[in-house]
Amino acid sequence: MVEDEEKGEMVVTPWEVSGEIDYERLIEEFGTQPIDDQLLERIKKHTGELHPQLRRRIFFSHRDLDWILDMYEGGRSFVLYTGRGPSGPVHIGHLIPWIFTKHLQDVFGSKLYFQMTDDEKFLVKPELTLEKTNSLAYDNALDVIAVGFNPKKTKIIMDSESGGILYKLAIRIAKRITFSTIKAAFGLEESSNIGIIFFPAIQAVPCFIESHLEGENVPCLIPAAIDQDPYWRVTRDVAPKLGYYKPAQIHCKFLPGLGKGGKMSASMPETCIFTTDTPEEAKKKLWNAFTGGRPTAKEQRLHGGNPTICPIYHYYYYLFEPDDKRLEEIRWECRTGKTLCGECKLRLAERVGRFLTEHQKKREEARDKIEEYIFKIKD
Amino acid sequence: MVEDEEKGEMVVTPWEVSGEIDYERLIEEFGTQPIDDQLLERIKKHTGELHPQLRRRIFFSHRDLDWILDMYEGGRSFVLYTGRGPSGPVHIGHLIPWIFTKHLQDVFGSKLYFQMTDDEKFLVKPELTLEKTNSLAYDNALDVIAVGFNPKKTKIIMDSESGGILYKLAIRIAKRITFSTIKAAFGLEESSNIGIIFFPAIQAVPCFIESHLEGENVPCLIPAAIDQDPYWRVTRDVAPKLGYYKPAQIHCKFLPGLGKGGKMSASMPETCIFTTDTPEEAKKKLWNAFTGGRPTAKEQRLHGGNPTICPIYHYYYYLFEPDDKRLEEIRWECRTGKTLCGECKLRLAERVGRFLTEHQKKREEARDKIEEYIFKIKD
Repeated sequence: MVEDEEKGEMVVTPWEVSGEIDYERLIEEFGTQPIDDQLLERIKKHTGELHPQLRRRIFFSHRDLDWILDMYEGGRSFVLYTGRGPSGPVHIGHLIPWIFTKHLQDVFGSKLYFQMTDDEKFLVKPELTLEKTNSLAYDNALDVIAVGFNPKKTKIIMDSESGGILYKLAIRIAKRITFSTIKAAFGLEESSNIGIIFFPAIQAVPCFIESHLEGENVPCLIPAAIDQDPYWRVTRDVAPKLGYYKPAQIHCKFLPGLGKGGKMSASMPETCIFTTDTPEEAKKKLWNAFTGGRPTAKEQRLHGGNPTICPIYHYYYYLFEPDDKRLEEIRWECRTGKTLCGECKLRLAERVGRFLTEHQKKREEARDKIEEYIFKIKD
Repeated sequence: MVEDEEKGEMVVTPWEVSGEIDYERLIEEFGTQPIDDQLLERIKKHTGELHPQLRRRIFFSHRDLDWILDMYEGGRSFVLYTGRGPSGPVHIGHLIPWIFTKHLQDVFGSKLYFQMTDDEKFLVKPELTLEKTNSLAYDNALDVIAVGFNPKKTKIIMDSESGGILYKLAIRIAKRITFSTIKAAFGLEESSNIGIIFFPAIQAVPCFIESHLEGENVPCLIPAAIDQDPYWRVTRDVAPKLGYYKPAQIHCKFLPGLGKGGKMSASMPETCIFTTDTPEEAKKKLWNAFTGGRPTAKEQRLHGGNPTICPIYHYYYYLFEPDDKRLEEIRWECRTGKTLCGECKLRLAERVGRFLTEHQKKREEARDKIEEYIFKIKD
């Protein structure tokens, strides 16, 4: 927990992200490393042109990414691990790290473990049944598959259904973690339920599952939003005690919501474009979004807008304008008042609409593929 | 935890039993009910002659046993549930509740779930690996089967191998239990590992597994030593919140060790007759045992011995002299100095030797039957 929510300031925990996010402060407080130009150059040698999410520092922080590259350059493969807590529908903010993870899978040929933590969401959300979170897990898996992961190299772990191996590995991890550690890392309390206190051991399992199955140590890289970092801090402390490599991480920022400040959050549906929204619904949400524009068209033409605080601009930046030159034009046309907000919104809405139509087509096709992706118990 | 170990007084927790046990005080402090004459009469109607362990108040305390009889008399069957934490070899003290549980199975025709908590023992014993506790679980299962449980009605749950259904049910239970509750019930602390903090949810599962599998509420009766009671207190609080009946219990005393005071404990092998000891080893341990006798034969003949504090007498009482009249003779012959300790020990050693030979034969036969008993994952 970075700061207290009541102060209306930055809060970044695995279960809550709110306030204005200061990413440099997160690097300092979480003790991670910034992804610097030197590291980017090194990645570029393997990936060719850098992925927009790296060029734009959407993935901005890491732990041991240089070590992963050392291993890879030394001829060792590594596994990728990311996941999703299925507490509701997927929005396009969730897709960002998945799209990047798919890129890493394509470039490095890595196997991916994708954990669906239906157990976690059941444990932390008083109103959700396990049946509900499990059904959401299957729904959300359609979005994961729609991103285009290689079915031969991707295993989706449905937590509540993979208990055998999951529990067996988790207790090995749990034996090495005290409640004090969990309390400090996650802000859990004595009034927390014993399921969620145990859960960090479950979330640690996929870091080591490949090593366990292969019977030899396999490096693991976790691309995920930075709010999940407390899990990896705890997992990294335990790893050497179990004879495993510490998992490496690469951390991304949160896609801002369509309101003023804060990340896109499914709990505020109007700030949020879901992957199942129709293009019309998305258009309406974008039309009603907060922007960095001036109160009147006249003022906008005269003084220009402020893209830095504008969710519409952020959408182009994070996902909908991969061409850096075109992005700079969008920025410039806003700053100089050449483009008005309405026009800019409509242009974005068209791109978002096309994206949603395409994603939803793949999402439907995923229904027939889901079995191929599910990790089956293998004790 | 009943009293602090450092004071050298009674300690009764699921992980430690030491000091002089005051069973009446346990009834009071744990808030259970004594098994009174009226309840015994009621049981007798179903069992014919009362089992020695009931007549002798070895099973001395209960919760809701009257309710179990209400249900049974109303035509409802109930399941039995007991278990074993496999941290070492089985000694004859462990057999006492199992022998009684077999009696209940025979008389009431009940299905039995027997939980082997190899996960718990791994989590609480720093020196034990999961491979070791799992291998002990299989070894100890031979003793369970040797007791003669009906293979058609008995399922042995190997915790670390039944993760699927076990974890799925455990998290439903865990969501309803806070760390505060566990801390108060078990004396766990912030330095406790998160696996053992979660474990009470795992130990609760077999109470509800039949209801879960049958899709209707099935009463459950737990015959076990009273040190396990904190688990059932916690489980009983949770049960109605999950729509299940509270599990009923019937509690037994601990077979005293061969030393002075305290229960038979595998951690003090000289006080302890293991089921795999040879008759000669057992004879030697009995010969070296503490007794209630006088320092010299002369004094013993003159003043008599004290069976109340004598482990040798306790062995007759708990297990090796089912005939009440003969038991009373043994007592009388001790009190009056008619029998000397050596003679009494040799007579017991002969009975124990016969018992061990027979048990070990059944134990070997159990190797071919074990698969029949193991609970298989059925989600």
